[in-house]
Amino acid sequence: MSVLDRIGSPADLKELDRSELKQLAEELRREIVQTVSRTGGHLASSLGVVELTIALHRVLDSPRDKIVWDVGHQAYAHKLLTGRRDRFPTLRQLDGLSGFPKRSESPHDCFDVGHSSTSISAALGMAAARDRRGGDEKIVAVIGDGSMTAGLAYEGLNQAGHLKKNLVVVLNDNEMSISPNVGALSSFLSRKMTSDFFIRMKKEAKHLIGAMPGIGKELLQLTSRAEHSLKGFFTPGMLFEAFGFDYFGPINGHNLDELLETMQNVVRLDGPVLVHVVTRKGQGFRPAEDEPSRYHGVGPFDPETGEVVGGKGGAETYTGVFGRTLVQMAEKDERLVAITAAMSEGTGLKSFAQRFPDRFYDVGIAEQHAVTFAAGLACFGLKPVVAIYSTFLQRAYDQVLHDVCLQNLPVIFAMDRGGLVGADGPTHHGTFDLSFLRCIPNLIFMVPRDEVELRRAMETARRHEGPFAFRYPRGKARGLAVDGDPEPVEIGRGEVLRRGDDVSIVAIGSTVADALLAAEMLEKEGISAGVVDPRFIKPLDEKLLLAAAESGLVVTVEENVLQGGFGSALCEFYADAAVSVPVIRLGLPDRFVEQGEQAELRARYGIDAAGIAERIRRAFAAGRARSAGS
Amino acid sequence: MSVLDRIGSPADLKELDRSELKQLAEELRREIVQTVSRTGGHLASSLGVVELTIALHRVLDSPRDKIVWDVGHQAYAHKLLTGRRDRFPTLRQLDGLSGFPKRSESPHDCFDVGHSSTSISAALGMAAARDRRGGDEKIVAVIGDGSMTAGLAYEGLNQAGHLKKNLVVVLNDNEMSISPNVGALSSFLSRKMTSDFFIRMKKEAKHLIGAMPGIGKELLQLTSRAEHSLKGFFTPGMLFEAFGFDYFGPINGHNLDELLETMQNVVRLDGPVLVHVVTRKGQGFRPAEDEPSRYHGVGPFDPETGEVVGGKGGAETYTGVFGRTLVQMAEKDERLVAITAAMSEGTGLKSFAQRFPDRFYDVGIAEQHAVTFAAGLACFGLKPVVAIYSTFLQRAYDQVLHDVCLQNLPVIFAMDRGGLVGADGPTHHGTFDLSFLRCIPNLIFMVPRDEVELRRAMETARRHEGPFAFRYPRGKARGLAVDGDPEPVEIGRGEVLRRGDDVSIVAIGSTVADALLAAEMLEKEGISAGVVDPRFIKPLDEKLLLAAAESGLVVTVEENVLQGGFGSALCEFYADAAVSVPVIRLGLPDRFVEQGEQAELRARYGIDAAGIAERIRRAFAAGRARSAGS
Repeated sequence: MSVLDRIGSPADLKELDRSELKQLAEELRREIVQTVSRTGGHLASSLGVVELTIALHRVLDSPRDKIVWDVGHQAYAHKLLTGRRDRFPTLRQLDGLSGFPKRSESPHDCFDVGHSSTSISAALGMAAARDRRGGDEKIVAVIGDGSMTAGLAYEGLNQAGHLKKNLVVVLNDNEMSISPNVGALSSFLSRKMTSDFFIRMKKEAKHLIGAMPGIGKELLQLTSRAEHSLKGFFTPGMLFEAFGFDYFGPINGHNLDELLETMQNVVRLDGPVLVHVVTRKGQGFRPAEDEPSRYHGVGPFDPETGEVVGGKGGAETYTGVFGRTLVQMAEKDERLVAITAAMSEGTGLKSFAQRFPDRFYDVGIAEQHAVTFAAGLACFGLKPVVAIYSTFLQRAYDQVLHDVCLQNLPVIFAMDRGGLVGADGPTHHGTFDLSFLRCIPNLIFMVPRDEVELRRAMETARRHEGPFAFRYPRGKARGLAVDGDPEPVEIGRGEVLRRGDDVSIVAIGSTVADALLAAEMLEKEGISAGVVDPRFIKPLDEKLLLAAAESGLVVTVEENVLQGGFGSALCEFYADAAVSVPVIRLGLPDRFVEQGEQAELRARYGIDAAGIAERIRRAFAAGRARSAGS
Repeated sequence: MSVLDRIGSPADLKELDRSELKQLAEELRREIVQTVSRTGGHLASSLGVVELTIALHRVLDSPRDKIVWDVGHQAYAHKLLTGRRDRFPTLRQLDGLSGFPKRSESPHDCFDVGHSSTSISAALGMAAARDRRGGDEKIVAVIGDGSMTAGLAYEGLNQAGHLKKNLVVVLNDNEMSISPNVGALSSFLSRKMTSDFFIRMKKEAKHLIGAMPGIGKELLQLTSRAEHSLKGFFTPGMLFEAFGFDYFGPINGHNLDELLETMQNVVRLDGPVLVHVVTRKGQGFRPAEDEPSRYHGVGPFDPETGEVVGGKGGAETYTGVFGRTLVQMAEKDERLVAITAAMSEGTGLKSFAQRFPDRFYDVGIAEQHAVTFAAGLACFGLKPVVAIYSTFLQRAYDQVLHDVCLQNLPVIFAMDRGGLVGADGPTHHGTFDLSFLRCIPNLIFMVPRDEVELRRAMETARRHEGPFAFRYPRGKARGLAVDGDPEPVEIGRGEVLRRGDDVSIVAIGSTVADALLAAEMLEKEGISAGVVDPRFIKPLDEKLLLAAAESGLVVTVEENVLQGGFGSALCEFYADAAVSVPVIRLGLPDRFVEQGEQAELRARYGIDAAGIAERIRRAFAAGRARSAGS
């Protein structure tokens, strides 16, 4: 019987001795590597915090005490220790265990996460509520140094230092977020302060000491010898001390003894405490230690060698097409610059960054700043491309609205992971953007149906002198030939892809291919379905839509919530144009969509070819029934 | 001829001598007080930066050099010095000068603002673009200490310290934002650091010095005498130095000589520079100096005494009703706590804060944190009310979606300033919320039509165990009696307010009253119009809407953009229900709406009683014409 076999809940950890705890760490790592090698998942982050997770659960009394995991992709060991080991093999699969903490999944998950930098704010709220009702639960937020670059984390720190609640923030410092970390904060944490800083501080110190009556001169002589030590004096802790936190660390996050001792002490302290823990992403699995970015979110791999299984061959991904095309376009257009919020790999900007290092900006996990920074660039005549996942653009909504669209600035939003993303689930589906962007004036919004159209969207955006968004899906493109320079399309001009008399399927983006398949299926059944791709969410191709209505039945398909989305736009248009035509809208319902393979989810929600065909079939059956009855 | 009469553009400032510059400051103050006493506006902030504005325009070469005003409500002196004095009397009026910088208004306004904390990001973008194209324009961001509490500002600082562009950030420190400032940063800036902090630092210093070989002991004896001076050593500047900025200050922001000398020097420096300028809100106008919050955004007043003209008497504001009712409800329901993002006065929470200081949280200008903090409070059984302007909730979109609605937590969003806000214009209209919130699952969204219904919305929200938003307009309520305890309404249940056979006007929120008036007008012309208030944007009262369709014509009215809004929801519903009824949607068009009195704007966009009646009249005329023609 392994040690892990004996852990049904965190309480069982209290029974183990130190050597068993260390063995447990090894077993957890093995279990995580084995499972993730089959399911894929966030490997490197979870491996990095195995000892930290053990230490926290040993010292705390979960679920009474709360651990708020920031982002949550590091919580696999936590899941294994909190009674979910039997379900662990279902990780990230349809109806399986979530890849993130989820309140509905376990009482040990106290806050749903997925996006970064919420933990301090949430934990502070819990602490304030605890004190209102007079409890003494311990509350611990675990946040990475990458997440600390986000404004939200700073806002939380600022209030935490002010409220003085009992609260432990564990800064899990692995010197990188998803991409290697950037920004001044990072230099500060790693003590890579500029020499300028020390020279200035030295001067200030001398000046100050010199001004002290009586002891000035004496000290002044000494300070020159003490100069060297000033570097040590300006510790990472000072920043947090300045915010009102007690600072402890840095401590070795893979030394269980050190972790246990520290944690035991800090959870007993009053007021806000920050513990600086240094860990290594991927710890204990060599390939992930060597390439933490690659094993951040990884598909199935060989657990011995780390070699990623499958995923190669076949069509290029949309992300790949985007990244490659952007480099190509940037060769010819000097105005193009690219911005990412800590996702250079995920958004396909790596080769751009290599080719044009001085036209590439990784701003850290700071989506708001990414967009306003882009607006500033655009004010000076550049054409910034903000490459961002649809779900993360939610973080910069006001900036898109105010700083870009209100000013009508030529910023390009390249929204990757539009629509259903698969295993990352509800926190990562990009299924709201058609709704939340459609209401913003001045914005052109295109949803290319394949990689050829994606490249045309890019070229159209490049030529347009105003805000322009396009969204494309996660995963493989359609394998079409995409050579040469892309042609722009006319803004607001869609395309009839297939003519049909009985019904017009008006599909957008990734759903167009399924609409075409559905039309073929229906043809065999004697239903003549046309397929139209309006290409643009706004402006709409009104002529095309009027023509589509002539069939007498319009079916819209989108990979977005139905509320306020693409079908909604069509209903508005037909109402405004006083066109009376039945519209059947296919898309995602008014609830959060679970995790699962993209294809599984599309099938479940009836927006794949079979679902589209079936819905139309039903409509015609009902129509025939009505005709027969009348 | 006054000095101000001689200033046609900032270039003319260069001709003045010091005494003339000082006179100019006085004249600017007089002009600002005189004009704002008639137009209303952001008085206190603009008075606070008169000398700073003169110094910047004297030292810089605008519009070549750029001044990015954060928020922008302090830019009146800037407007007066940049060729807009003749239009200054039209300030904040329909088709008049904007109360904020606006690129379309003047080449001296380089970035549109209105919401806080964008200036560092925008200025950094400009600096990066300048360096790409090889220019040497000077770029200066002017940001208040209040704005500095927002995460966006921190994100900007973090990248600025990293990129090392030439950039000047002027920290305009008046020790308050709109409400008195809060948070750890504020204590830091004002050097009101806790004694704990100094005790810790002292220890650390002793430890460090003691460890230095050779000189340790000697110094150690001295440090005890130096202890006192450590306080001086931890200057506000250290925070910014740590971020890679050169820090200068604090300097007196009302001493022109000091300002000019400092600015002249810093704009010549390389790399990011922060100048800490201490100013006083309302400087030079006694009533505003004494009560800066009251004169932050003020209506017309007596320029001699400061007494606010009008505004008193008549109906209570919606804000007032909300604040008063919340106190009443909180007396009975211990779970209720209130949160504001630096707008305790604007959102009507002042009396709540006085009555329940330990149930009130002002988080600073930090909307993202406000919402996630509320989610944390809700996790522990409290019922947080986030009182926030509709336009500022845009700043926390992802937090509403993820941290509250995805977790289905009982957070109440009390959205003030929903719809058209008047003189603050496009950056402040709350005219997108129906669209951007409607697509979020789990959220209940009510739009009360008057203050009685507002109180019922509050009570309904209090009893609901999930996310609940309601929005209400800026300004006076309808003067209805609002005593006693409000009754809850059934969720998703609307109300028929007037029966009518020819047309159903389905209006929401503030437009209901106008719809009723329009119906009366139409009745006299022989058109029988019913008026329906569905109360809820989601869930919709489907039965009510089906009944409304029976008239054969539905007209929707909303104070929101038409794209994805309330009328859009109705079109969706009728399409889904296969109800074929013409729907005419009245609301705001797909462009940013200008400033102006609320009534003026409602008239301009045809959503007041006259506009509604006229649109329906036209529909019937067209119908009759068609009947006659057929």
